[in-house]
Amino acid sequence: MMSINAQDNRPSRVEPPNWWVGMENNQLQLLVYGADIGKTNPEIEAEEVSIEAVHKVENSNYLFIDLNISKSAKAGEFSIKFNENGKTVAKYEYELREKTTQNRGFSAADLIYLVMPDRFANGNPGNDDVDAMLEKADRSNPNGRHGGDLQGIMNNLDYIKDLGMTAIWVNPFFENNMKDYSYHGYAITDFYKTDPRLGSNELYKNLVETSHEKNMKVVMDVVVNHCGINHWWMKDLPTDDWINNHKKFQTNYRGSVIADPHASKYDRNRFSTGWFVETMPDLNQNNPFLANYLIQNMLWWIEFSGIDGMRMDTQPYAEIDFVTRLAKRITEEYPDFTILGETWLQKVALTAFFQQNSPVAKDYNSHIPTNTDFPLYYAIKTGLNQEDGWTTGLAQIYYVLARDFLYNDAHKNVIFLDNHDLDRFYSSVGEDINKFKMGIGILLTMRGIPMMYYGDEILMTGLEHTGHGNIRKDFPGGWDSDKRNAFTEQGRTDKENEGFNFVRKLAKWRMQSNAVAEGELTHFVPENNTYVYFRHTDNEAVMVILNNHPEESRTIDGARFKEVLDRYGNGKNVMTGETVSDKSTFTLKAKSVKIIEFKK
Amino acid sequence: MMSINAQDNRPSRVEPPNWWVGMENNQLQLLVYGADIGKTNPEIEAEEVSIEAVHKVENSNYLFIDLNISKSAKAGEFSIKFNENGKTVAKYEYELREKTTQNRGFSAADLIYLVMPDRFANGNPGNDDVDAMLEKADRSNPNGRHGGDLQGIMNNLDYIKDLGMTAIWVNPFFENNMKDYSYHGYAITDFYKTDPRLGSNELYKNLVETSHEKNMKVVMDVVVNHCGINHWWMKDLPTDDWINNHKKFQTNYRGSVIADPHASKYDRNRFSTGWFVETMPDLNQNNPFLANYLIQNMLWWIEFSGIDGMRMDTQPYAEIDFVTRLAKRITEEYPDFTILGETWLQKVALTAFFQQNSPVAKDYNSHIPTNTDFPLYYAIKTGLNQEDGWTTGLAQIYYVLARDFLYNDAHKNVIFLDNHDLDRFYSSVGEDINKFKMGIGILLTMRGIPMMYYGDEILMTGLEHTGHGNIRKDFPGGWDSDKRNAFTEQGRTDKENEGFNFVRKLAKWRMQSNAVAEGELTHFVPENNTYVYFRHTDNEAVMVILNNHPEESRTIDGARFKEVLDRYGNGKNVMTGETVSDKSTFTLKAKSVKIIEFKK
Repeated sequence: MMSINAQDNRPSRVEPPNWWVGMENNQLQLLVYGADIGKTNPEIEAEEVSIEAVHKVENSNYLFIDLNISKSAKAGEFSIKFNENGKTVAKYEYELREKTTQNRGFSAADLIYLVMPDRFANGNPGNDDVDAMLEKADRSNPNGRHGGDLQGIMNNLDYIKDLGMTAIWVNPFFENNMKDYSYHGYAITDFYKTDPRLGSNELYKNLVETSHEKNMKVVMDVVVNHCGINHWWMKDLPTDDWINNHKKFQTNYRGSVIADPHASKYDRNRFSTGWFVETMPDLNQNNPFLANYLIQNMLWWIEFSGIDGMRMDTQPYAEIDFVTRLAKRITEEYPDFTILGETWLQKVALTAFFQQNSPVAKDYNSHIPTNTDFPLYYAIKTGLNQEDGWTTGLAQIYYVLARDFLYNDAHKNVIFLDNHDLDRFYSSVGEDINKFKMGIGILLTMRGIPMMYYGDEILMTGLEHTGHGNIRKDFPGGWDSDKRNAFTEQGRTDKENEGFNFVRKLAKWRMQSNAVAEGELTHFVPENNTYVYFRHTDNEAVMVILNNHPEESRTIDGARFKEVLDRYGNGKNVMTGETVSDKSTFTLKAKSVKIIEFKK
Repeated sequence: MMSINAQDNRPSRVEPPNWWVGMENNQLQLLVYGADIGKTNPEIEAEEVSIEAVHKVENSNYLFIDLNISKSAKAGEFSIKFNENGKTVAKYEYELREKTTQNRGFSAADLIYLVMPDRFANGNPGNDDVDAMLEKADRSNPNGRHGGDLQGIMNNLDYIKDLGMTAIWVNPFFENNMKDYSYHGYAITDFYKTDPRLGSNELYKNLVETSHEKNMKVVMDVVVNHCGINHWWMKDLPTDDWINNHKKFQTNYRGSVIADPHASKYDRNRFSTGWFVETMPDLNQNNPFLANYLIQNMLWWIEFSGIDGMRMDTQPYAEIDFVTRLAKRITEEYPDFTILGETWLQKVALTAFFQQNSPVAKDYNSHIPTNTDFPLYYAIKTGLNQEDGWTTGLAQIYYVLARDFLYNDAHKNVIFLDNHDLDRFYSSVGEDINKFKMGIGILLTMRGIPMMYYGDEILMTGLEHTGHGNIRKDFPGGWDSDKRNAFTEQGRTDKENEGFNFVRKLAKWRMQSNAVAEGELTHFVPENNTYVYFRHTDNEAVMVILNNHPEESRTIDGARFKEVLDRYGNGKNVMTGETVSDKSTFTLKAKSVKIIEFKK
């Protein structure tokens, strides 16, 4: 006779742990895990829920049960009995709840603030160390856990909102019970559980609700390509093909092979099935049970927490047809939900390939509506540090945008100056506040959905090649013991306040600008170290002028821009508030940005 | 009463000067030029030819006559009478000939040799200076005329053929009656006339015929975007809009504005209607008479000379809908004729936009089947001179090819290491013969239609920034007075013979390689300074290995390439003739290319 869970006679795991009535799709596949559970036959006592199929796999500790939940099913619990030789050897009360979530999604009207929870603020010092978790807090280790948590984010939502942000994206908060480097969150060891050192599922849900009350959206960071090597199933895999290649090799990180018509099978296989790093096994989404598991996990979190969107890590690395299936399923259930795919590719065409309805992907449609705009990121960073030439300096930015016809809709690209994997923007421009302002000026006015990395507003520094800990430093003031509190004006240096105020002023203005949220982009060929572009709707326009020369001011002739300027009245300098009535010339000092708003 | 041409009572010009019966399209529009010819009424006496319409324009010295030439019309002459007040004041005997031309077009099976006629060989010293032409020969002036001519090319066709070339592309040979810089041929002053310093229309036709007898094809270089400022019509334009913008500004040379969804009208207008240089007025192909004139001019030359293809200068600069109309009309008449558009753009997407059936051009189709592959040119040149990194060195080449999905058919791209506008390839790789051989190795095995610039085989040098004369030097031995004759082995230095023999051996081999002419491309992610690609058909494969390290040899594991190698038998090193039976490893010395042919 089998033994399931001696204490309460239940299987160790039934996942998803609950579900909802009122879903568009009435299918649900339960993963049941327990010693020899695969030798039992499950039975359900419920009027509107039935078992459609039961799948046994190589490993008899697993059972996959396909349920059909009828449209008229009511919320409540029902029993699943696990029978062996005519006897019920285990039982599970499964809960169906009422579906209530309505998402808003995010768009170019938003400004997203990316927070690494371990490094932002320690709202609950009581959970810094948790017995069951391998790694304890150690703030002296740049790559260790520092104790920041979801409560820390919660405590500082007003700071984030006051900065002009309209959404937060929190790096993965799922359990990462890894020996070391567990703080970043991308080595998930339980897809259904908030890491106890960051908080709890309920606290996350609370963070979402509180954010919504403050009229801010929340973007969840999810990983479907890989898990942490300490994931609970790694010691007892359901099937041999649950993961790819059993750690024979790492991925080649060359996302180009997916679109490349000349790519070898060798390289494609290595890219898609290689492990991300040696502590992160590559999940095989071609296994239908795993695919269902991951998709339902996403749906579970959406419905459970009420989030508005998700950022999918390493989109190209997962099986691309699985990504499509996932995106379609989520959109079927939550049409207004936004999925952002991380596509870390340097070339516009290779990035565009992964966006929904891509004109450059003949035989593929990811159904992922928004993607990370790495080409623009590289162009801004390189361009501001480079002498202007035919294709260099500001022309880098110009030429990336000139290829927007490769995207289905470049206005849906998420744009950024850095993130948790990249040089801090302030460092990447040599800690030059003028270049910093140019970058922020571009970020908050360019087509696309802007994202800022926590602490950029106070000029936090760090170069990636010196170690990831350095680009993920603690926000000063997030810990009680901190010597100063940069969440307050008094706690910031003058220079930090200069950065903060610049970001805040522009972000607040951005909130009410339809031209930036919805307007078309029209740009002009860079000339003489300057680059001019407009965002414009019928009723308003924003003119952005950049002077990239390191020493000289520039005066440019307004006549070139008549096709836009003539449609509107006087302008207003967004940063100074000055009226701009003379449109015949525009003058900028060296290394600066000027943003002028025109209304009809 | 009007006076047309006092001597013979004929209009000064009727163009096209003749036409053909048996054309697919039976429309023909004559441009008639003569003093006050626009005040006359034309009349035709012919059974199968009729006047469909007569167009008078602002300038009364022009008349445009639409003729309909019936399908059953016979070759022969007919009279056009120009009547005024009931009296015939002028007359023209117009000839219709039998259409006979059949084109072969060119493809990836070809290897094109680009010759600048003034700089290759002086076959007829008697035409170096021509009274009616403004500029006389002066070999001491790098930017002057040097006396090379079509007869010079004719005299050396056997040299070109022996080198392994299968086609010649001759820079424009049309009259360029300009004060200076007239040698390059791109400032055309008469679209129907061979420059008398280069030869005659009959001699060009003879060159085509002789080339065909030697089984070589001929590509004509045409310009529809602009003419020379001394073009005969510039002193007496048919209409004010015959040319654009009357020299108010030059083009901005930013071809990106055509595809760029964000480009301003200002920039688009400046690009398309700006003059190419101040001595080359921009033709307005939106003027329907000019459009017809240019299209008929192309058809005239194809039928008159029997050429196999044409290279269209500055494709993006001309009105893009006109380009489509031109390409469709030519293809309607000559389905096997190949049109190569010059698309000097650095980005793959921007280049791909201009190719026929481009997947990236939603609302536009150029109908131009082949384009110049500048992105690959830049990648090879940069890559061979750069340290290998994630996207640098050989990865430059890899990433350009990875984006071939942007083209309708990248195998139709014309690929090259230089041309008459660019640094001589040997100079661009620092006169390093090893890098030279790597470049030639790529050029002659890569997907696409390879093109070589005259003299590259003997390592001719010159950097563009030192003046165009330096990249268009005279081929040594092309002039009787030359101290040596590099057309012969004895006249070349040892190093020149090394270059020559490398090119010749590979080119001769290429002629019989189906893998290179028709094969698919499969490539592998560059690793450890090496890059490996294959061209392959069912029956054969060519393996190309590049080692880009400046000092170290490299041995690579053959197991990576099993998916290709296992399909074929033993290989043969193309350059050494050695048999390659061991496919387990491949070793290359520093900065080298290895090309191995495998057969089933």
